[in-house]
Amino acid sequence: MANVLVIYTSVSGNTEEMARLVSDGAEKAGADVTLKRVEDTDPAELLDYDATIIGSPTYYGAPAAPVRKLFDDSVKYHGQLEGKVGAAFSSSANIGGGNETTILTILQSMLIHGMIIRGNSKGDHYGPVSINAPDIRVEQQCRELGRRTAELADKMT
Amino acid sequence: MANVLVIYTSVSGNTEEMARLVSDGAEKAGADVTLKRVEDTDPAELLDYDATIIGSPTYYGAPAAPVRKLFDDSVKYHGQLEGKVGAAFSSSANIGGGNETTILTILQSMLIHGMIIRGNSKGDHYGPVSINAPDIRVEQQCRELGRRTAELADKMT
Amino acid sequence: MANVLVIYTSVSGNTEEMARLVSDGAEKAGADVTLKRVEDTDPAELLDYDATIIGSPTYYGAPAAPVRKLFDDSVKYHGQLEGKVGAAFSSSANIGGGNETTILTILQSMLIHGMIIRGNSKGDHYGPVSINAPDIRVEQQCRELGRRTAELADKMT
Amino acid sequence: MANVLVIYTSVSGNTEEMARLVSDGAEKAGADVTLKRVEDTDPAELLDYDATIIGSPTYYGAPAAPVRKLFDDSVKYHGQLEGKVGAAFSSSANIGGGNETTILTILQSMLIHGMIIRGNSKGDHYGPVSINAPDIRVEQQCRELGRRTAELADKMT
Repeated sequence: MANVLVIYTSVSGNTEEMARLVSDGAEKAGADVTLKRVEDTDPAELLDYDATIIGSPTYYGAPAAPVRKLFDDSVKYHGQLEGKVGAAFSSSANIGGGNETTILTILQSMLIHGMIIRGNSKGDHYGPVSINAPDIRVEQQCRELGRRTAELADKMT
Repeated sequence: MANVLVIYTSVSGNTEEMARLVSDGAEKAGADVTLKRVEDTDPAELLDYDATIIGSPTYYGAPAAPVRKLFDDSVKYHGQLEGKVGAAFSSSANIGGGNETTILTILQSMLIHGMIIRGNSKGDHYGPVSINAPDIRVEQQCRELGRRTAELADKMT
Repeated sequence: MANVLVIYTSVSGNTEEMARLVSDGAEKAGADVTLKRVEDTDPAELLDYDATIIGSPTYYGAPAAPVRKLFDDSVKYHGQLEGKVGAAFSSSANIGGGNETTILTILQSMLIHGMIIRGNSKGDHYGPVSINAPDIRVEQQCRELGRRTAELADKMT
Repeated sequence: MANVLVIYTSVSGNTEEMARLVSDGAEKAGADVTLKRVEDTDPAELLDYDATIIGSPTYYGAPAAPVRKLFDDSVKYHGQLEGKVGAAFSSSANIGGGNETTILTILQSMLIHGMIIRGNSKGDHYGPVSINAPDIRVEQQCRELGRRTAELADKMT
């Protein structure tokens, strides 16, 4: 059974709600899940999990500063996340508002750590995007991301 | 008065409709506009315009092959598009379906030609995105893109 | 033992040389490898392989048109590549010449197919980049990409 | 005469050295230049300049957290940077190490502010990239970025 870390930063509460849904999806797939804020996460913790899923609001087409600070500080563990599984999601105020680039910026950082990521041929391909508060479509996408990531992490361990 | 080339490729007709709206917005701003299919465009034609706006459906997160072929073939005019104005738009089947990356791929190619591009602080920041057929929001975004691009091209000439 | 498809398009021969090195790396890791040109590849063939690795020269920061045509045409198999492994590499004329965006455009298309990709914490993180003809550094990166991709595909089957 | 703000964050000193070269290029083109650290910059200051050029080391394929914090905080001036000129540069430890995505992440944030950016058909197309300490090629690219940005800002005012 894989253990999965779901971390997020959130001001309006939309990304936090997405994080809970992702977390719930991973748990229902049998994973042992820890859900917490990025601001309360030390990069060393990433070593303890088979998969890490990161959520951020879309701020000017990129993840919020606390997410970047986590990656900046993670350099001291460079190479130690090789082969772990990663995924990302974002909330945004607009369609076309930079949500894809936000998710991809997180995924690219995970690739640079040598991590494994997976797209989804249905719905939000790079990762779930919520325009404002999560609706039923986003809820399903978030639960599915949790499930898929847990299953991929299971396969890799 | 700037002259503006609006080129597009379209299968379902959604991108074509967006192209007509963009074109109309540029004309209303006083530009002399040519609207045509990418497939009927020789890269040499780009030299004749102050601005080029390119529309493509989102195919696997990127512009359709005919758009890429135009850029591949444009290498023989490399350096001659320096300082011209560029812009892009896309239609897509899904939110989060790769529409931002499609637009950005076109804009990045324009940057490599030394072209000038501009975002929009309101609405679809990188360029208009239509989820399926253009609705009233997309219509406004497309007209606005035409207007802004014509005005920027005017300023540059 | 995984079977791996390595496909490329090449004009100068640099991407072709990279493809041979990637192919060799995958074979040495025990994979059953098919090496061919993108132009000679039907998208249906992607269904037959556990992993697909795609190489393209960097043309205006994006893959060449034949690579995009393969993805455009692959839509008829949408959903059937879920869970397969993907990777990409590129040759370019310049550092900072758009080679990262070329590789990422390919990887993003793979994600939209629901495929699994992996970065590398050492060297060219998203995939090997050759500035002009492959040197010894690029040779090592290409072999390593073949090896890693074959091993990941093995794990997934 | 345009006034140009060059801001950077730097640990090793490489990005700082690039910033000085960019600044020098803009001054030689006649601009009134302010050079300072991102950490010492309030987002309100961006309103006072015709152009802003931002430099960051490449940290996991993205700008360092202080650069993102500046953008996060800039939301209170959203819309007020419309039509201003932007540019970016980065230093990195590797070719293919995420330097293009770092520069593009900054440029995308500028587009979301409605700013105007320009590529370069020669050399580092999206913005100067230094692999470790700036060499003679990077020095020329940095000076050129300063010059081009100052001239574009001049034209826009």
